[in-house]
Amino acid sequence: MHDLVITGGTIVTAADTYRGDIGITDGKIAALGLGLEGRDTIDATDRLVLPGGIEAHCHIAQESATGGMTSDDYRSGSISAAFGGNSCFVPFAAQHRGMGVTETLDLYDSRATGASVIDWGYHLIVADPTEKVLTEELPLAFQRGVTSFKVFMTYDLMKIDDRQFLDILTVAREHGALTMVHAENSGMIAWMTKRLVDAGHVQPRYHAVSHPALAESEAVNRAISLAKLADAALLIVHVSTPEGAKLVSDARMEGAKIFGETCAQYLFLTRDDLDRPGMEGAKFMCSPPLRDTATQDALWRHLQAGTFSVFSSDHAPYRYDETGKLANGPEARFNQIANGMPGIGLRLPLLFSEGVNKGRITLQQFAALSASNAARLYGLTEKGSIAIGMDADIALWDPNETRTVTAEDQHDNMDYTPFEGWSVTGWPTTVLTRGKRIVENGELVAKPGQGRYVARARIDLTGYPGHRAPELDPATNFGANIAPGAAK
Amino acid sequence: MHDLVITGGTIVTAADTYRGDIGITDGKIAALGLGLEGRDTIDATDRLVLPGGIEAHCHIAQESATGGMTSDDYRSGSISAAFGGNSCFVPFAAQHRGMGVTETLDLYDSRATGASVIDWGYHLIVADPTEKVLTEELPLAFQRGVTSFKVFMTYDLMKIDDRQFLDILTVAREHGALTMVHAENSGMIAWMTKRLVDAGHVQPRYHAVSHPALAESEAVNRAISLAKLADAALLIVHVSTPEGAKLVSDARMEGAKIFGETCAQYLFLTRDDLDRPGMEGAKFMCSPPLRDTATQDALWRHLQAGTFSVFSSDHAPYRYDETGKLANGPEARFNQIANGMPGIGLRLPLLFSEGVNKGRITLQQFAALSASNAARLYGLTEKGSIAIGMDADIALWDPNETRTVTAEDQHDNMDYTPFEGWSVTGWPTTVLTRGKRIVENGELVAKPGQGRYVARARIDLTGYPGHRAPELDPATNFGANIAPGAAK
Amino acid sequence: MHDLVITGGTIVTAADTYRGDIGITDGKIAALGLGLEGRDTIDATDRLVLPGGIEAHCHIAQESATGGMTSDDYRSGSISAAFGGNSCFVPFAAQHRGMGVTETLDLYDSRATGASVIDWGYHLIVADPTEKVLTEELPLAFQRGVTSFKVFMTYDLMKIDDRQFLDILTVAREHGALTMVHAENSGMIAWMTKRLVDAGHVQPRYHAVSHPALAESEAVNRAISLAKLADAALLIVHVSTPEGAKLVSDARMEGAKIFGETCAQYLFLTRDDLDRPGMEGAKFMCSPPLRDTATQDALWRHLQAGTFSVFSSDHAPYRYDETGKLANGPEARFNQIANGMPGIGLRLPLLFSEGVNKGRITLQQFAALSASNAARLYGLTEKGSIAIGMDADIALWDPNETRTVTAEDQHDNMDYTPFEGWSVTGWPTTVLTRGKRIVENGELVAKPGQGRYVARARIDLTGYPGHRAPELDPATNFGANIAPGAAK
Amino acid sequence: MHDLVITGGTIVTAADTYRGDIGITDGKIAALGLGLEGRDTIDATDRLVLPGGIEAHCHIAQESATGGMTSDDYRSGSISAAFGGNSCFVPFAAQHRGMGVTETLDLYDSRATGASVIDWGYHLIVADPTEKVLTEELPLAFQRGVTSFKVFMTYDLMKIDDRQFLDILTVAREHGALTMVHAENSGMIAWMTKRLVDAGHVQPRYHAVSHPALAESEAVNRAISLAKLADAALLIVHVSTPEGAKLVSDARMEGAKIFGETCAQYLFLTRDDLDRPGMEGAKFMCSPPLRDTATQDALWRHLQAGTFSVFSSDHAPYRYDETGKLANGPEARFNQIANGMPGIGLRLPLLFSEGVNKGRITLQQFAALSASNAARLYGLTEKGSIAIGMDADIALWDPNETRTVTAEDQHDNMDYTPFEGWSVTGWPTTVLTRGKRIVENGELVAKPGQGRYVARARIDLTGYPGHRAPELDPATNFGANIAPGAAK
Repeated sequence: MHDLVITGGTIVTAADTYRGDIGITDGKIAALGLGLEGRDTIDATDRLVLPGGIEAHCHIAQESATGGMTSDDYRSGSISAAFGGNSCFVPFAAQHRGMGVTETLDLYDSRATGASVIDWGYHLIVADPTEKVLTEELPLAFQRGVTSFKVFMTYDLMKIDDRQFLDILTVAREHGALTMVHAENSGMIAWMTKRLVDAGHVQPRYHAVSHPALAESEAVNRAISLAKLADAALLIVHVSTPEGAKLVSDARMEGAKIFGETCAQYLFLTRDDLDRPGMEGAKFMCSPPLRDTATQDALWRHLQAGTFSVFSSDHAPYRYDETGKLANGPEARFNQIANGMPGIGLRLPLLFSEGVNKGRITLQQFAALSASNAARLYGLTEKGSIAIGMDADIALWDPNETRTVTAEDQHDNMDYTPFEGWSVTGWPTTVLTRGKRIVENGELVAKPGQGRYVARARIDLTGYPGHRAPELDPATNFGANIAPGAAK
Repeated sequence: MHDLVITGGTIVTAADTYRGDIGITDGKIAALGLGLEGRDTIDATDRLVLPGGIEAHCHIAQESATGGMTSDDYRSGSISAAFGGNSCFVPFAAQHRGMGVTETLDLYDSRATGASVIDWGYHLIVADPTEKVLTEELPLAFQRGVTSFKVFMTYDLMKIDDRQFLDILTVAREHGALTMVHAENSGMIAWMTKRLVDAGHVQPRYHAVSHPALAESEAVNRAISLAKLADAALLIVHVSTPEGAKLVSDARMEGAKIFGETCAQYLFLTRDDLDRPGMEGAKFMCSPPLRDTATQDALWRHLQAGTFSVFSSDHAPYRYDETGKLANGPEARFNQIANGMPGIGLRLPLLFSEGVNKGRITLQQFAALSASNAARLYGLTEKGSIAIGMDADIALWDPNETRTVTAEDQHDNMDYTPFEGWSVTGWPTTVLTRGKRIVENGELVAKPGQGRYVARARIDLTGYPGHRAPELDPATNFGANIAPGAAK
Repeated sequence: MHDLVITGGTIVTAADTYRGDIGITDGKIAALGLGLEGRDTIDATDRLVLPGGIEAHCHIAQESATGGMTSDDYRSGSISAAFGGNSCFVPFAAQHRGMGVTETLDLYDSRATGASVIDWGYHLIVADPTEKVLTEELPLAFQRGVTSFKVFMTYDLMKIDDRQFLDILTVAREHGALTMVHAENSGMIAWMTKRLVDAGHVQPRYHAVSHPALAESEAVNRAISLAKLADAALLIVHVSTPEGAKLVSDARMEGAKIFGETCAQYLFLTRDDLDRPGMEGAKFMCSPPLRDTATQDALWRHLQAGTFSVFSSDHAPYRYDETGKLANGPEARFNQIANGMPGIGLRLPLLFSEGVNKGRITLQQFAALSASNAARLYGLTEKGSIAIGMDADIALWDPNETRTVTAEDQHDNMDYTPFEGWSVTGWPTTVLTRGKRIVENGELVAKPGQGRYVARARIDLTGYPGHRAPELDPATNFGANIAPGAAK
Repeated sequence: MHDLVITGGTIVTAADTYRGDIGITDGKIAALGLGLEGRDTIDATDRLVLPGGIEAHCHIAQESATGGMTSDDYRSGSISAAFGGNSCFVPFAAQHRGMGVTETLDLYDSRATGASVIDWGYHLIVADPTEKVLTEELPLAFQRGVTSFKVFMTYDLMKIDDRQFLDILTVAREHGALTMVHAENSGMIAWMTKRLVDAGHVQPRYHAVSHPALAESEAVNRAISLAKLADAALLIVHVSTPEGAKLVSDARMEGAKIFGETCAQYLFLTRDDLDRPGMEGAKFMCSPPLRDTATQDALWRHLQAGTFSVFSSDHAPYRYDETGKLANGPEARFNQIANGMPGIGLRLPLLFSEGVNKGRITLQQFAALSASNAARLYGLTEKGSIAIGMDADIALWDPNETRTVTAEDQHDNMDYTPFEGWSVTGWPTTVLTRGKRIVENGELVAKPGQGRYVARARIDLTGYPGHRAPELDPATNFGANIAPGAAK
């Protein structure tokens, strides 16, 4: 007799699709079969039963280096994520210059604990890699289960230089952490921005011009080069160009431990959206910026071919009012407008509708991109699939329901969505975290604070092209070469 | 109460690893859980419980164009396969010139039925694509579940020309069949062979010289070009060079529907083995030939990165006696010696030992390469994974057992193995097909004829880079371009 | 006191541009300086004084395999060439199946001698590489100064297979001859043509469809692979696609002895010209076919960067009447219409007008592409530049003259030009061969038969990436590898 | 009657080789012919008569950012250059931080004037691109004939950041100057150096380890990306890796205005030389460092194929004593030892001996790499070839003389040469600048101060892949794109 049984659904994992019941006990998946019985039942007839989504790139309760705060906190952010089919998320804990890492993590703990309705972890943004941070605090962060570090190659107050990047990669390699990078060339953006502003080209559409594709491809190449030198694993987040994707793909084939991520907006929107009248374009500003339809095609191909292990929202919620996009007034120049757009609740419905329902990806790929890949890559060892012993993080989907997207339906703290008016087919109806209902039939049934912090494991690179078991690794004892990647 | 329960094992699929029991009823997997009960039980304590292997490239009871017959028939071949962890295999049914396709398939049916201990299907070799074959017989073959066609670009009596290749690709595309190709440049091999023989270079080692890497890379490029033009799916079998692998990988990233396979011998042996004294090198002759250690490294990388969907044995058994390798006497020239080597029983143990146990691949990759990928690619819709509703094709493995390879242990009809004396850790102990034991604890417990023919489904390209759903496909109505791949 | 002095002009070579007089004695350039004196004078004030052009790809007095004859013979062809700035040309001598090579060359000698107004040589088309041809006749051809052999990968009655190609490359390598290849995939073209014709798509525009870019890129890749295997020099003629050009360029950088040629029509026309009303499109049919404007841009870049050593007309004159394009009637299908277009008189004026006058190339590049590169590549050791001791093959150009192109002005035996109505700036005014005026101020002043046959030298590959001096060449004694290109 | 006649030699230019006399009047080449007469004669029997070399990368009378001075001044440096076959050189004028550009050029004028025996110009090193420098001083430098600017991506006191790099490229583009760059990743080098030193790996051999190939390829890619964005011409100096060379080559083929240079030491030496006993390895330290023999092969191929327009010495003379290499004592760590090696007198003899005499390059390529290419690229419009009207900068070479290299024979102010003991065949015997003998039959016959400063012209990009005439250039009016290279 299980605590809860989900009956009559079609179970989907990264490997299989099959009819079956799921028995849940103590928050774990305990049985898969037919005719299971439990004290409580969820009827999944006509539903797909999927691993609960893991949103691995989102900005929640995060202030920028200059003090502005995202409009979503852990309460509203986690609720919107749950309505979008997610059982878990991994926002950023952002170290700013002058802050310690432990201090940073404690601060974010205070923001998340008691607020989140789903489970969570943190990626640590490292903006100030002092000697103390490198030798003492990053290992401590790793010990408390923060096993991924993010760095920026652009943004004046966040960016690190190439040598600092190598130092962080080195620490990450030693501990088994994954480094993530926002890869755009800072100098190119600054130079372009100055020229545009000097010429009076200040409307939102020039945001895209100021962040040329070359700025991404250059930085991606540099980041990969640094990771090769350090022989360290590296994830390029929000890849937005074919050139960037190809660099990731080529590096993998050549045996570098490079991973890629892309985001919903790059598949579904273009820079034409920045051209809307007045300041409307500000709603579509993010970095890297939206590109064009040829780029969309290329990114789909790479998503299909496995170049991107992770597919995210990069939810960065700034309202279209004076607290957010319009903080510098309705005449603000593009470089005075907060970057980012919301989407934590739409990542999966959009991928399902445009991906699965239009035949671009299989249900297996959807499960992998929803949850399984992120779970493996980020060390969420008890999440991300439907198998015995795993956390009962589960999402029921109605693959046929069609809804029109509205901002109000997002359950976040935003006043707009860039996907307003889109017709989307395929929606999550019920979402569980550790066997507890969070959303049921479209209603929130969880209480804030119901989520738990998840300490993540070291990343496991087994089977990845660039990885070798210690006994096979010529770089293990690299002697005088000092840089593992320089061993050859 | 299940017919059979496998208890206490560690279940492995392409997505998951977990402890659990498997309940089997009517030859199907009916339940996954803990504490399952059945009329019969297999204790899987300390065992990995994996999808039964699918050997998708092997030559069984097949005569060559000049009449020589492989030493293994469906009885001995299937037994050796089962001892090697396989629940199913897909040998070739070879049309020779002048033969009809239906005639060919009937002939192979007569050879397999009543003989095989495991389930089987056929890939159809098409060597004579007459108008009748293209318009009538291939569709009939497809209807009886033969949904993959293989062609040769080399071998005088088997090879087709580029135009015939396009015709076959076109028929395959229309029906949803997969075309497979042995890609080597015939002219290069003939030219090299003549020069070598004229110069008196006739020992086995010159076999490798006569099949240069350029012969493979040229032909792979040509085959991919033809598939692009026809917008058809194509699998390059037994890729043996880094150049060939890169062409496959690049084509995938660019959106062509290209798949790759490599084989055990290319990962584990080198052409140095051809250099053994006397005619011993003949045991290591296959086409394409063995290469070098740098090639091995590159092929491992591509196996890890997903360039190769299928990993096979290319079991082509010719005894080291006058019925096989020595048919033209002990002084035969390299081009008078039968090509091919046995390995159907060692494909998976070698991959486990060198792959999983040495940390090169994960258990998930092993399951995918054992069975899941081949099942999907070749339309074996009820095989290849451990999930409710699937055929109970299951292999139990002892991951820690170490054995030394001998020819006698292969249970085939061969008198040698190229891997004689290798120390291999990780062996299958018990293998089931549709819930019936074939091998149990190292003993054959099945009767010849216990296997069944499996009619395979059309291939499903959903989610593959080059595939588009009909409504998204600009090539669907390609009008005057005539060649779908020329649409742009 | 020179025989002739050209005074007051601006002399241009592949290296220099300078003001100077040229003194000519005994048909050779004897002095360069100022104030030179001679018994005869040409005033070159306001003229560029360039090396006389060498047209290295043209079909003159050549019958096709099925018997049709080009409309130009050595008289009309050479006259048109001279009016276009050429002092020398190298048409094809075409061996057809069943013909001997010596027989072929004797036949062409009888056609050229006494007819040509400019000097000439032959490229030998090899369509029937019998053992006798390979071992006896090609060496004889080489001895009489025919040091370049051309092969076809398409056209049913001309094409050779890959093994024959290797045999010819081998003979060429041994003697120091250059092999040239028309690289298109025969099977692709046949398959496409059948599908088009079956579907009723028979107008001239479908000619371009029937020869897809893939047919060229595949064949170029194959030809380069064969040349690599044989370690032989190879020139890809009339490259018409960016893909083909990139293959040539990449092969060069990797050290293969590959050369490329493109032709005027691929830089200046597009397949839109095939779409003209009625049968007008037939005038623009050539193989490979015209492509698009993006291709033009790419070919210009490769011309600038040095990928193409030779720039030619591929003059293949078939009149727009029942002797040529309309031989199969006004309703003929595209595959029943003779391929080729005239242009021997316009190659250089078009290149000057669009290249030099529009700033795309320098005068030095123009001189190189006019004459110097072809002279070096084809062993015309006394032609192709303005230097002391060279043949006084010289063209005076008025760089500022603008004329509208008409068919009548071509001085050939054609009734149309594909460039009718083009406005072209920069025209040759006076042309000399070995110090004798052929055309002077726009009038023909030479007599038929004034030209001489030029025996050409073996090609000199010194300084070319793939070439090594014998003492540096690891392939020189390649032992058992047999194929030089397989040495590594 | 010419002032001087060079008789009986074999004249070589980038296009031609021919027997002829040269008549010189007023320091210019006035006639080419046979039997010329003059008031003075140089007998060139058995000599090659080549354009006098132009050494375009050398450090003369230059102090480092920390004050150290090269051991050669304009007197000794120019004498050594002349003995090595050069008629002209273009050392650097180095702006250090805090210095003005005009101040810098004035300083170098004071060092060169009255000292140099051959003609000279300057490349301006820009280390401090203030607003004043960008808007006022660089244009002034350009006006005085300094039309090339060099920047560093590494060296703490010299390096500029990416934005400054873009600013300099922009100024250069506007004026028609060429930007040159030392491309190595500063952060990689610093990180490697620290790890090596921390580990006690401090001997000269670790210098090569501290500058990995990845540091060059990353920086070359970044520099090319910046040049693409600015649509500006850029020369990558001293390319030392196959990866860097390929990036240059690929960029050219794609239409970027990228040029490459390599230097003698990368073709002739390897990092094994750094391994000599004691501190001897310090003699072979330069940046980028020496690599391996596979790199040499690749660089030769690129030299042959035209990837490198310029071939230089990078003469950076620091004596092997306490004024130079050993300034920090005999136990100095590799990062405390001055970088650079001498070679201004050996660049051309080495290239002749290993290039021309061993059949790797032609005499034409030698002339181009000696002088003609540099003359064109750097705007030395009256130098670099043998043609009427050009400066009579001429070098006579004995192609057959064999000499063993010694430091003493270098005529510089150095106490070692890295080529000590090499046997070199082919030496310059007499060198002229503007018709005046500098070296004659191995004796210095010029007086210090005999050389003149040469104001150079704007660079001419006509005919280069990335260049378009204004009327063809879509970037000319690039409107809102602002960055020309972002126009597409």
